[in-house]
Amino acid sequence: MSQTQTTTAIKPTRQEDYSEWYQQVIKAADLAENSPVRGCMVIKPWGWSIWELIRDALDKRIKETGHQNAYFPLFIPLSFLEKEAQHVQGFAKECAVVTHHRLEEKDGKLIPTGQLEEPLIIRPTSETIIGDAFSRWVKSWRDLPLLINQWANVVRWELRTRLFLRTSEFLWQEGHTVHANEAEAREEAEKMLEVYRELAEDHLAIPVILGEKSEGERFPGAVNTYCFEAMMQDRKALQAGTSHYLGQNFSKAFDIRFDTKDGGLDYGYTTSWGVTTRLIGALIMTHSDDDGLRLPPRVAPSHAVIIPVLNKPERAAEVLAYAEKIKKDLASYTYEGRPITCHIDVRDLRGGEKNWEWIKKGVPLRIEVGPRDLDNQACMVARRDKAPSEKTSLPTENLGPQIAAMLADIQKSYFAQALKYQQEHTRTDITTFDELKAFFTPKNADKPEIHGGFVLAKWCGDAATEAQLADLKISIRCLPLKQSGTSGTCIITGRPATIDAIFAKSY
Amino acid sequence: MSQTQTTTAIKPTRQEDYSEWYQQVIKAADLAENSPVRGCMVIKPWGWSIWELIRDALDKRIKETGHQNAYFPLFIPLSFLEKEAQHVQGFAKECAVVTHHRLEEKDGKLIPTGQLEEPLIIRPTSETIIGDAFSRWVKSWRDLPLLINQWANVVRWELRTRLFLRTSEFLWQEGHTVHANEAEAREEAEKMLEVYRELAEDHLAIPVILGEKSEGERFPGAVNTYCFEAMMQDRKALQAGTSHYLGQNFSKAFDIRFDTKDGGLDYGYTTSWGVTTRLIGALIMTHSDDDGLRLPPRVAPSHAVIIPVLNKPERAAEVLAYAEKIKKDLASYTYEGRPITCHIDVRDLRGGEKNWEWIKKGVPLRIEVGPRDLDNQACMVARRDKAPSEKTSLPTENLGPQIAAMLADIQKSYFAQALKYQQEHTRTDITTFDELKAFFTPKNADKPEIHGGFVLAKWCGDAATEAQLADLKISIRCLPLKQSGTSGTCIITGRPATIDAIFAKSY
Repeated sequence: MSQTQTTTAIKPTRQEDYSEWYQQVIKAADLAENSPVRGCMVIKPWGWSIWELIRDALDKRIKETGHQNAYFPLFIPLSFLEKEAQHVQGFAKECAVVTHHRLEEKDGKLIPTGQLEEPLIIRPTSETIIGDAFSRWVKSWRDLPLLINQWANVVRWELRTRLFLRTSEFLWQEGHTVHANEAEAREEAEKMLEVYRELAEDHLAIPVILGEKSEGERFPGAVNTYCFEAMMQDRKALQAGTSHYLGQNFSKAFDIRFDTKDGGLDYGYTTSWGVTTRLIGALIMTHSDDDGLRLPPRVAPSHAVIIPVLNKPERAAEVLAYAEKIKKDLASYTYEGRPITCHIDVRDLRGGEKNWEWIKKGVPLRIEVGPRDLDNQACMVARRDKAPSEKTSLPTENLGPQIAAMLADIQKSYFAQALKYQQEHTRTDITTFDELKAFFTPKNADKPEIHGGFVLAKWCGDAATEAQLADLKISIRCLPLKQSGTSGTCIITGRPATIDAIFAKSY
Repeated sequence: MSQTQTTTAIKPTRQEDYSEWYQQVIKAADLAENSPVRGCMVIKPWGWSIWELIRDALDKRIKETGHQNAYFPLFIPLSFLEKEAQHVQGFAKECAVVTHHRLEEKDGKLIPTGQLEEPLIIRPTSETIIGDAFSRWVKSWRDLPLLINQWANVVRWELRTRLFLRTSEFLWQEGHTVHANEAEAREEAEKMLEVYRELAEDHLAIPVILGEKSEGERFPGAVNTYCFEAMMQDRKALQAGTSHYLGQNFSKAFDIRFDTKDGGLDYGYTTSWGVTTRLIGALIMTHSDDDGLRLPPRVAPSHAVIIPVLNKPERAAEVLAYAEKIKKDLASYTYEGRPITCHIDVRDLRGGEKNWEWIKKGVPLRIEVGPRDLDNQACMVARRDKAPSEKTSLPTENLGPQIAAMLADIQKSYFAQALKYQQEHTRTDITTFDELKAFFTPKNADKPEIHGGFVLAKWCGDAATEAQLADLKISIRCLPLKQSGTSGTCIITGRPATIDAIFAKSY
């Protein structure tokens, strides 16, 4: 290998330019690229495979918790969007609007014709079009709870976009449910937040803080918005998903009414909840290092890559057969319910080049096999959570359980490392606005270094105070579900306060 | 059960009004419904689950044949569509066009604002936007073949729509590949047609005829279009999917060039291939009867429904526990790689009502368990391919293998029945245009009965002759890949002809 510990595979490093480092990690891992369509990305095979693993893990849990998948139209009539006043206000400024349904040539140029009587909005979220369907599906308390989920693409026209984190088109799942009373609907919104926590922590190895959004950060049309927030390595918060208790706002707007058990008539109590391809952005920024992506094994498309050393042509065939045998043996073992998956890299490239490529792609284990390994019935195993040059020789006999144990260990180590980082940069000792300001102000204004973190502090709950935070470029990320119950003084106003809140810069 | 053999669960019957029967089967099985958005459907959970099974089976084969999934933008810049002349001509008349990116209030009304510099087309198919990406990805022969697939929604604005068969928005997979030479690209297009045949015949139990489209029916921009055609129960043909050899048409339009192995420079040879949610329409019209949907077990969301007989309240708990035990036992057996899946219908409804509901939903097996069955450690099993009243008592000991065998038998019987129907209504003895006309003319013009079928006959290959078929409301569905090699006279012109062609009415 030509590179040593002092150079890094990704340039710039996180410290040098975090934002550019992020783009370079994506490029080096070949996850996605910008498309010629403003704000839209192309998700490349390696990135898409990660999304499939996230989708499948979450879909399983969504079904296990009693939900059924369905599919609703891409288009939302403008009049539907208008039915919930806060909702339309929240999305009007970022809508892709379809106004015509054909193209015709005029003066040698194709122009849109066939104007629609009513413009159609590409769904930015589907509460309205699904609410309309639910008004037909829900008639009686016997029809409740109605528990539906959809996997779909949505569009929110964004002016400033970044791969995975903020794109005009993105992919997500959106759950939409109707319940007979408030308690059940609230329980649903909280249950799905817990499902998301499991997904984030157990699969993506991303430690998260569960909380409720303050009024200013609520979903347009929601009574309560719950979220989970993760700390990225630049110490900014990333909201990775939300779950909303919508009360009767949408059921009143769309007339979702039902005969109650005791002979009355009531509007349904609804929820909605979603996570998006943004999770891949969270994954990248939580685990990657200056050598590139690091994938938690549970969401790694390949658990390991096998790199055959083919420098002795006379032994190439038997080395390749040996690699195939190891791949096949490992596939008969599982890690977390999935067969251990290896890719054999047979390309005509130098071993060092291949090795670094797979480091950058974040594959958890690299298994090198050459003639000598074959003679010893062994292989050289390198872990992505160790130094690039660190390798261990392992006998191939009974390799499966050893590899499975390593994968479990890597999964655990990524979570532990991220949790440690989050805890180290979460301050609970900051109590005044001046301290808050100092904490979130970089030392070098021209070229801000990585700074700040999470501040857990008291807040008086007055929505008007949130505006003051904008000057510091921070916001209340959430009011953690785990509240201490203690009293103190509001970090913004100094008034008596009991609410615990997380303050941070954010994506 | 209140219904007897002489009444049917679906009204009208196929013979009475085929088109309305189709709508009623969908409604009774709760598969999908029309949405308030013109031409767009809502796919309901039972319909969606069928799509998931189709998708998963096909996705597995697409991956096994070396393809990788990726995801490309929903939007196609108008200028991209224009780059391939035939392509834009083919789709210009049915495009949803995005012209604005926000909504603003004016005189109390929301109107589209923020006009886009260049209109964006919602993808009707993605050759253009993917071709653009491929031009960046393909540089050298080492990058080939490039084998990509995408699962996505597409929009083709349709004036006359029918659930699943023709909708403005539909779901599909679209494969897009680039090869270093014509032979490899042609091989790819044919290979994927064969994958589709397997999907149709082995999973959906739909017998199909593989063939090539005549020039008039080709995909806009293709050199050759291959297809598979199935016969519905009204004897019309349904094109269920296509595979195209695109030659260098799109690689020249999008500059997909590569350094050849021998030091030259060439444009790539591309293919594309896709199947859509239309397959569900084919499934419905191939297998359903006058009692509703019949699902081939391999694409049935539940293999069986267990209906507990709860008319003796004092024994209800033990009957339910017995039902649960049967469900659990069966889940430990597999049918075609999937655990045997049962749904227990515990709703507070009469048994007969439940029974008929599941008949209409097409579930392959209905398992009734009551106190007497429990005492005998048995259950009553009814098959969807037998008369509604026919039931067999089976011991629950070792039930799994018996159920698996029944499922295999049903799958086989549906295919055999559909194949018999197709063969019975495929004529090879029609040789003149007058006979052709007579065959495709209903006896009762006011209320046409089910008539016609497939006619396998000779065609001279002159594209100009195809226009004459329009008068008979028929077309050349395909030129079967299996050509007899014999000579004869063209059924349209009477001229000498060697090409075998299938003539039929179609969806």
